[in-house]
Amino acid sequence: MRPVVLLTDFGQGDHYAGVLHAVLVREAPGIERLDLSHAVPPGDVWAASYLLRCAWPHLPADAVVLVVVDPGVGTARRALAVRLGQRWLVAADNGVATAPGMPDEAFALEAAAVGVPFLSATFHGRDLFAPAAARLARGERPGALGRVVDGRGLVPCPLPEPLRTERGWVGTIVHADHFGNLVTNLRAAEVTGDVSLARPVQRSFRRVTTYGEAGEGEVVVVEGSSGLLELALNRGSAAAVLGWRRGDELVVKEDRG
Amino acid sequence: MRPVVLLTDFGQGDHYAGVLHAVLVREAPGIERLDLSHAVPPGDVWAASYLLRCAWPHLPADAVVLVVVDPGVGTARRALAVRLGQRWLVAADNGVATAPGMPDEAFALEAAAVGVPFLSATFHGRDLFAPAAARLARGERPGALGRVVDGRGLVPCPLPEPLRTERGWVGTIVHADHFGNLVTNLRAAEVTGDVSLARPVQRSFRRVTTYGEAGEGEVVVVEGSSGLLELALNRGSAAAVLGWRRGDELVVKEDRG
Amino acid sequence: MRPVVLLTDFGQGDHYAGVLHAVLVREAPGIERLDLSHAVPPGDVWAASYLLRCAWPHLPADAVVLVVVDPGVGTARRALAVRLGQRWLVAADNGVATAPGMPDEAFALEAAAVGVPFLSATFHGRDLFAPAAARLARGERPGALGRVVDGRGLVPCPLPEPLRTERGWVGTIVHADHFGNLVTNLRAAEVTGDVSLARPVQRSFRRVTTYGEAGEGEVVVVEGSSGLLELALNRGSAAAVLGWRRGDELVVKEDRG
Repeated sequence: MRPVVLLTDFGQGDHYAGVLHAVLVREAPGIERLDLSHAVPPGDVWAASYLLRCAWPHLPADAVVLVVVDPGVGTARRALAVRLGQRWLVAADNGVATAPGMPDEAFALEAAAVGVPFLSATFHGRDLFAPAAARLARGERPGALGRVVDGRGLVPCPLPEPLRTERGWVGTIVHADHFGNLVTNLRAAEVTGDVSLARPVQRSFRRVTTYGEAGEGEVVVVEGSSGLLELALNRGSAAAVLGWRRGDELVVKEDRG
Repeated sequence: MRPVVLLTDFGQGDHYAGVLHAVLVREAPGIERLDLSHAVPPGDVWAASYLLRCAWPHLPADAVVLVVVDPGVGTARRALAVRLGQRWLVAADNGVATAPGMPDEAFALEAAAVGVPFLSATFHGRDLFAPAAARLARGERPGALGRVVDGRGLVPCPLPEPLRTERGWVGTIVHADHFGNLVTNLRAAEVTGDVSLARPVQRSFRRVTTYGEAGEGEVVVVEGSSGLLELALNRGSAAAVLGWRRGDELVVKEDRG
Repeated sequence: MRPVVLLTDFGQGDHYAGVLHAVLVREAPGIERLDLSHAVPPGDVWAASYLLRCAWPHLPADAVVLVVVDPGVGTARRALAVRLGQRWLVAADNGVATAPGMPDEAFALEAAAVGVPFLSATFHGRDLFAPAAARLARGERPGALGRVVDGRGLVPCPLPEPLRTERGWVGTIVHADHFGNLVTNLRAAEVTGDVSLARPVQRSFRRVTTYGEAGEGEVVVVEGSSGLLELALNRGSAAAVLGWRRGDELVVKEDRG
């Protein structure tokens, strides 16, 4: 049986995340379950996409990933099961399903095909997504869960891509992590050396390899664990010190000397 | 072996919830464990009862539910194992044990019978409840864990029931969830159509089926995933906008026209 | 296969803790995994040591404990696998590895020996610690993971020990828990009876056995579940009422009458 990875915006204070686990156990006793996170901010497809993309290379090769970040629950948005390589991803068609890349196959889940006895209007995670994930984990053919859809028609992932312009690299802060590191979408392999910003302020940051190399109170640039550049403060929060936030744009000056 | 579902007020920052898992694994290696929540506010039997009641229909049919919300730990309050249908529920006798309904059988746990080598005064979850749950999960006879008690003498669940009065339905907000939805104890099947409140304020709320149907900034009434009416704001917090809280009473005018 | 217990400062909002689980499942499918906590404050070796020490006696006898609280990640600090009795503990050499006691054996992990294909500079939990824990859980010989080191040379645990002095017992508040209990490092078996403080203020606290024995609003002294004295307020937070914090020193007057 395939392991199931859960990612939701349910938080910990309600029964919602626990009920997803319960449905998985009910539908597939003994199934291996992993929580990626339940702390995605409510309805935040960007954050879910970021976490999913960072975790993706490290998930079990045959994982079924169950994402319930679904502000459009009950409306006309599609519920999807998509395959990338050997993995399956079950999610609403709101951008998160394309975060790890373009799918090899895509299906729109249909409640009758999944065998759902009762479909609420407000909790498709429980009534449709989790039962579908359990059936994929048990090795059922996805064609039995709905109809084929064209992967090119799926809602695109909201994560911005960096741009190389005349002004230099234009990147975006895509995540502020638990340690206060500001993760950008700039790839460490492409933007090398110290980082000199033209925006939001004129300021240079020293490039180091480990957090521990930063001086006391010094914000540095580090290659994070997903290969993206991060602004970091050793034993402190770069996000708090700089006051920058997700979505803020950075322009990196390039030395053309 | 039966799966064990955990529900506590231990939070995440201490070792308490992890130690419950450790005791279960120690006493029943390979046991299937599910976290319903560990974020019940400290000692909040109402919240534990609400979460348990909502999750109950979706739990594995043969689950053992281990609830440790026990402000009276070490005092004369009883520690219970109760059966409802095929499921077992281990909890303090403070109201949570009767949240899913009246038990078919009830036992008062006795430390000697459970085979507890050491009973602390402050952590019966670790020393008594979890070992008892592990033994029930392994299929032991509950009679071996303590003495039979009369289910009718258990502390009643604190969740209020709605009342139909001359003024209309009198309900209560029983939960504010992670999304800011205000969940009432009014059953969607009984209170139909738009909802016109006489208290706490004179105000009408449009009844819709999905969160997505609400207008920008419009608080609506929705049937939540447990069949209860919720006040909800699409992509926002109804709790924050209305300023109402758990325990607040609502009076719904009835159209007798 | 041995169960793996996870303890980190990763919080819930990122993919970091989930990725540790994913690596364990990828390297050791079907492995039993337990979360002790992921809410250690960032880089807080003291808190990690406290939680680990409290949980230690209750963990499965053959557990592999994976601790990722590693502010020095990527620097010269060693990555360790240490054995105490039948258990293995994988952690950075920053004090947490010696929290449960002096190891019977200690090894410095070497990436090549562990078979790590890629070692990032910022996430050794994912790239080195978790793969090493998985291999220990599968029963591999630790000698295959690195070189033997002298346990006496490991960084000592930062948790302070209580002192008996002319003035009486000098203890420290080592933890404020989720319930607001202030846990000291004073052993209940050594400091008996009511507790009369000389510092930080002259004040006496009644010794009781259970939280429920305290009067309304009365802060009492209780033997906590790890055998340490706690200052506690029934259905309230002693930490909030007293305003004391972790690290504060307490001097307990001794009655020599």
